[in-house]
Amino acid sequence: MAPPVTLDTINPKVLKCEYAVRGEIVTLAQRIQQELQSNPGSHSFDEILYCNIGNPQSLGQQPITFFREVLALCDHPAILDRSETQDLFSADAVERARQILDQIPGRATGAYSHSQGIKGLRDTIAAGIQARDGFPADPNDIFLTDGASPAVHMMMQLLIRSEEDGIFCPIPQYPLYSASIALHGGTLVPYCLDEETGWGLEISELKKQLEAAKSKGIAVRALVIINPGNPTGQVLAEENQRDIVEFCKTEGLVLLADEVYQENVYVPEKTFHSFKKISRSMGYGEEDLCLVSFQSVSKGYYGECGKRGGYMEVTGFNADIREQIYKMASVNLCSNISGQILASLVMSPPKVGDKSYKSYCAEKEGILASLARRAKALENAINNLEGVSCNKAEGAMYLFPRIYLPQKAIQAAEDANIAPDAFYCRRLLNATGIVVVPGSGFGQVTGTWHFRCTILPQEDKIPAVISRLTDFHKGFMDEFRD
Amino acid sequence: MAPPVTLDTINPKVLKCEYAVRGEIVTLAQRIQQELQSNPGSHSFDEILYCNIGNPQSLGQQPITFFREVLALCDHPAILDRSETQDLFSADAVERARQILDQIPGRATGAYSHSQGIKGLRDTIAAGIQARDGFPADPNDIFLTDGASPAVHMMMQLLIRSEEDGIFCPIPQYPLYSASIALHGGTLVPYCLDEETGWGLEISELKKQLEAAKSKGIAVRALVIINPGNPTGQVLAEENQRDIVEFCKTEGLVLLADEVYQENVYVPEKTFHSFKKISRSMGYGEEDLCLVSFQSVSKGYYGECGKRGGYMEVTGFNADIREQIYKMASVNLCSNISGQILASLVMSPPKVGDKSYKSYCAEKEGILASLARRAKALENAINNLEGVSCNKAEGAMYLFPRIYLPQKAIQAAEDANIAPDAFYCRRLLNATGIVVVPGSGFGQVTGTWHFRCTILPQEDKIPAVISRLTDFHKGFMDEFRD
Repeated sequence: MAPPVTLDTINPKVLKCEYAVRGEIVTLAQRIQQELQSNPGSHSFDEILYCNIGNPQSLGQQPITFFREVLALCDHPAILDRSETQDLFSADAVERARQILDQIPGRATGAYSHSQGIKGLRDTIAAGIQARDGFPADPNDIFLTDGASPAVHMMMQLLIRSEEDGIFCPIPQYPLYSASIALHGGTLVPYCLDEETGWGLEISELKKQLEAAKSKGIAVRALVIINPGNPTGQVLAEENQRDIVEFCKTEGLVLLADEVYQENVYVPEKTFHSFKKISRSMGYGEEDLCLVSFQSVSKGYYGECGKRGGYMEVTGFNADIREQIYKMASVNLCSNISGQILASLVMSPPKVGDKSYKSYCAEKEGILASLARRAKALENAINNLEGVSCNKAEGAMYLFPRIYLPQKAIQAAEDANIAPDAFYCRRLLNATGIVVVPGSGFGQVTGTWHFRCTILPQEDKIPAVISRLTDFHKGFMDEFRD
Repeated sequence: MAPPVTLDTINPKVLKCEYAVRGEIVTLAQRIQQELQSNPGSHSFDEILYCNIGNPQSLGQQPITFFREVLALCDHPAILDRSETQDLFSADAVERARQILDQIPGRATGAYSHSQGIKGLRDTIAAGIQARDGFPADPNDIFLTDGASPAVHMMMQLLIRSEEDGIFCPIPQYPLYSASIALHGGTLVPYCLDEETGWGLEISELKKQLEAAKSKGIAVRALVIINPGNPTGQVLAEENQRDIVEFCKTEGLVLLADEVYQENVYVPEKTFHSFKKISRSMGYGEEDLCLVSFQSVSKGYYGECGKRGGYMEVTGFNADIREQIYKMASVNLCSNISGQILASLVMSPPKVGDKSYKSYCAEKEGILASLARRAKALENAINNLEGVSCNKAEGAMYLFPRIYLPQKAIQAAEDANIAPDAFYCRRLLNATGIVVVPGSGFGQVTGTWHFRCTILPQEDKIPAVISRLTDFHKGFMDEFRD
């Protein structure tokens, strides 16, 4: 009897889905890491440097103390009244834990919550959004999720009926979007960001691609925008955001705003503005625009990827659609409570006068200032490489340099049957232990080649990253220069 | 301009999906609860008793101390070396937290892990499975997930290509399965459990339904079995399990074994056996059967629903299919680390000689013994109701009594345009504040009516539940008796 499950008999959408951030190059890196462990000295480097993924704490970033204190106390509330706890934990963490527990029915952090998340925590998050934007936010619009990814899947599942439904995505894009659209059987409708203008978004490009999609019989349902950009690191200008809002309103598109890097802005001339703030400041309300904003505890200065906390703020949908979104959330019961609590903490951190305020600010500013320095140092170093140009990392956690590969390298990649940028990245890994992701995993203008490199190695490692990368690149060019 | 998203333009699979456990009756209960808060005395009862969902801690069950100690310490490892910690936490919890942190690369509980979960925790879980079954388990077969639900979705997404792919589900079934099959566009192929024989599973029924499905052009891909049963509470006999394994092997079906209630067995004459143990003891190995076992931290004596921890053990699939499952897991990066840690703890609790062993056993046995008493008390009371019969809750957390509704009640329900069991449950809620789920949400033999009631109210509440239910039922029968 034939095995019941083969590649020919599984869901072809699963086969089609790709996720480069944890793709082939990472599998290779894990193998090398095992070789280094079992046989030190087997490679010309002694550790793998994972610059493939926005996972700050895996590279040594420390968690924010206040957040972890509150989480620990909520996990084990039995110690709240013990005198030792006063010595071990900051007073405002104890107080915050009590407040949070009071918001949870029965103080039961081990119970399923409301499917959208604990109401009191949603109140806190809504207040945080309101403080950020200067416009009201409604706790009933908040859906707490296990990180931003499940929220994105939920919206794709809601909107996509068949491959005739299209979702606008930037190129390059974070591959969660291409993967999720593939899994749900829709069509990714690309719009290209303009590398020449620092990954700018041109409305003319959107219009052109919308027409092209229509002519193929594809109904575009939504527009994904990632701000600050991933993998591109740009921060959108306010005026550009207004144009995008206007375009979505005019064309009847749902605006899916990936705003998980809202705290990660490194240049004084740029500021993050949420799309909700922009649309409300244009006078647009619930009736004018379907807008979903995604936020996560994995990014920002907190970088709590392992906690899987996040939310989406859902505005502009009719009540009957909201009910369907609620139903989808309820099938999975609720997101994890620690993640819910953490999402409320990042949207409502210690304030002036709180016992932890000073140490909290020092931790936060230390991390953000260091990220800015690392971004700058890597950007400069990469721009010093022959045949490489790199836009500024204004925000997010990535650089996305363009490599002008020599024809001989492209030919060698073709002979090896892989994309030229994957060829470069594999060589880099084998020579230096540095893991970056080929641009082809994110999408790029045909004939251009890039890679994505995080700015996350700790500062004491940055010189080594730069010198290893520089040496490798020089050797690579020497080998393949036309 | 028409709103961009309407019920006519969303994914019809979302529309089709139903999830009774958090359906209409729960929405009504939440409304009444708000009324009770804002206007005490507005109803003839003073609180809502949620017997609709297996959510033990929401009804006052206390978490297992050792588990919470370890979670708190892993959340805030900075206190591990403080002297106060020795006074606040048990010594073996401190030791376990250290062990776990040592298993996490960089001790970073705030980092994304391997997409299948932290390797050291999977080692612990595999060892726990091996100790339970007496057969080897491989950590590479374990996929840690945010509760069992995402794991079930993942398998449905893998197996279902179109509505011509069928998934065998018991009737009655836990509505996660019907919801997930609907969302992924497959066909639920029902097999009826036999209420007369205590919700027994007859192979003849499986054969009959398999033929019926084939004649409709449906290829059945997998068989879902829930043991101990939800909503039915039965524990399968070993011989019955062997027949099921044989059937799946012969017919080339993937066996999806929902074993989340493996610790919830209340009668001395029954024992839980995993399907993996059964199939291995029959001499069947990897080549013979595709078998997925689902486990969750939400059930058992621990009942940690809010932590969203769980795993699936995936055996019998080819390497190329395993790669596809890994890819699906990697798109969502990883499950939450606290849930991962807790999954390792429930599969490896304190052992003889450990400092916490005695108190752990007392907590565990206290909860399980109380659940057994509550199950028995409710079962007896329900069987004393006129026109109601109820099988034993041998396991799980539910009773699923059959109500022989008078014709007049059925007529009244028809007039109100709802299912007769939903009519009964709504009346029950309005009269008593007790929330149960109509049998129609789980599926039942046509013309029979049931409801699902958890055994989870705390013991001091059970007499009130019984007397309120008894009084209501008497009044209901008096009103509608033919």
